Amino acid sequence: MVQHPVPPGGRFDGALHRLAVRVYHEDTDATGRAYHGAYLRWFERARSDILDLLGIDQRKAIEAGEGFYVVSDVSLRYRAPALLGDIVVIETACEFARAASSRMIQTAVQDGVTLCEANVRVGFVGPDGKPKAQPLAWRNAFASIISDTERK
Amino acid sequence: MVQHPVPPGGRFDGALHRLAVRVYHEDTDATGRAYHGAYLRWFERARSDILDLLGIDQRKAIEAGEGFYVVSDVSLRYRAPALLGDIVVIETACEFARAASSRMIQTAVQDGVTLCEANVRVGFVGPDGKPKAQPLAWRNAFASIISDTERK
Amino acid sequence: MVQHPVPPGGRFDGALHRLAVRVYHEDTDATGRAYHGAYLRWFERARSDILDLLGIDQRKAIEAGEGFYVVSDVSLRYRAPALLGDIVVIETACEFARAASSRMIQTAVQDGVTLCEANVRVGFVGPDGKPKAQPLAWRNAFASIISDTERK
Amino acid sequence: MVQHPVPPGGRFDGALHRLAVRVYHEDTDATGRAYHGAYLRWFERARSDILDLLGIDQRKAIEAGEGFYVVSDVSLRYRAPALLGDIVVIETACEFARAASSRMIQTAVQDGVTLCEANVRVGFVGPDGKPKAQPLAWRNAFASIISDTERK
Repeated sequence: MVQHPVPPGGRFDGALHRLAVRVYHEDTDATGRAYHGAYLRWFERARSDILDLLGIDQRKAIEAGEGFYVVSDVSLRYRAPALLGDIVVIETACEFARAASSRMIQTAVQDGVTLCEANVRVGFVGPDGKPKAQPLAWRNAFASIISDTERK
Repeated sequence: MVQHPVPPGGRFDGALHRLAVRVYHEDTDATGRAYHGAYLRWFERARSDILDLLGIDQRKAIEAGEGFYVVSDVSLRYRAPALLGDIVVIETACEFARAASSRMIQTAVQDGVTLCEANVRVGFVGPDGKPKAQPLAWRNAFASIISDTERK
Repeated sequence: MVQHPVPPGGRFDGALHRLAVRVYHEDTDATGRAYHGAYLRWFERARSDILDLLGIDQRKAIEAGEGFYVVSDVSLRYRAPALLGDIVVIETACEFARAASSRMIQTAVQDGVTLCEANVRVGFVGPDGKPKAQPLAWRNAFASIISDTERK
Repeated sequence: MVQHPVPPGGRFDGALHRLAVRVYHEDTDATGRAYHGAYLRWFERARSDILDLLGIDQRKAIEAGEGFYVVSDVSLRYRAPALLGDIVVIETACEFARAASSRMIQTAVQDGVTLCEANVRVGFVGPDGKPKAQPLAWRNAFASIISDTERK
């Protein structure tokens, strides 16, 4: 029986979620650095991983016509480059999770150095693209990972 | 003799640069929309196209060890989705171009509807990654496309 | 009234379809060349452009639950690199278009030099993922672009 | 002290390398499946991971002007789709590693079902893009993972 390889995915350290990603050729560009757009993909991986850990099945919700999350706005501040082969840890904290939208603070860190900071607002929409309340069970799942400071 | 196909690229309408892109499968995701990260790629295409139109050769500068532009911060606001097959026009205005950094206002528009608005700050760095003044000729080239309002 | 920018897209030169693409940062990697995976995206752009020129609406077919094309096998031979800023012409010839599958020969050319050759087999599947005959009108549309040699 | 998250990366099971990847939104397209180009990125991740496990530092070799690996040809056969959220295991076996080129057999497997099979030939080139012998230490490192059948 073959051994399964290390499954990809992050974990929670209290309310903070951490996912390690590696910088592959696909992520870099001709300047020798990670392409600035790669961070959006890494941040999405972390948010999708959080949904998975919270038991939220995005695919099922899409297929059932319930809806899906969309990024409504995001701001990114790049501080230092990631290079080919680097292991970058994506840290995600959920600032709030309301019926209509959630906000995540995401940071890409390498060996204690902040590479990129992001502030992401996510909304939930139906198949018609119109905003709708996210399922209550999902919202409650998110509530469980809001940091204490924020919940007060 | 075969005819060359339509070369890709945008054009200036006064100080405003317009580049049309099409939404291909590569740009979409399982929600049926353009992936939110696709816009960063489209905006980069427009900025690179502007450099090209201004006679700025990015590759040569990288190869010569002069340096390259890096995105230092960007904020994106998503308003409406782009769908498979859509033709999206990327409009770019240069707000300012200083020695150390430039700022671009970029908008993705489809049939008069704004899909996404971006505010992008770009800096110039040497091969060591440290900020340096962009070549004066380049800065002057940019100055030629700063809108009147901004130059006053 | 603002002038529309050059619309993206290729054109037919007899049975041969040509689409010009530019190599942007998004397409390159840390080796300074276009990432080998970028060619698959460029080839897909060309095939989607062909569908569009033939009046085939992929999005409508997906949304209507009729089905979609999938790549069933592809072989790629890389001969020379594409570099940042290069204009690459994607040439596509349809070798055959049968009910169940079509075959395209695609080549990426720059200034007369072949960069990459691809042989792509495309099938049509229903929403359940099972192979089905492509719509007859679509197949006929493809028949119109099969080269003479092949049709005999 | 915070705990480091699970580091990304695969492992060897004898001569066979296994790396698990997850299908994120970035990997999917409007058909609801993983984009056919995503597999090339996953296969590259596995090959880069193998280099890393063998102690081969790609970035250092690029920066030192020694050269880098390039894919010279690849053939892909798609058998079944990967869907959003799926965990896909990339299995890689090195068929041979000669001075000039190596060949890898790579397979994407999900729950025992083969999704995609690839046959990838990789060459080594100098900064000028011309083929050159890969460093002997690297070739020897590869020799250690050639399956018995192949070495005879």
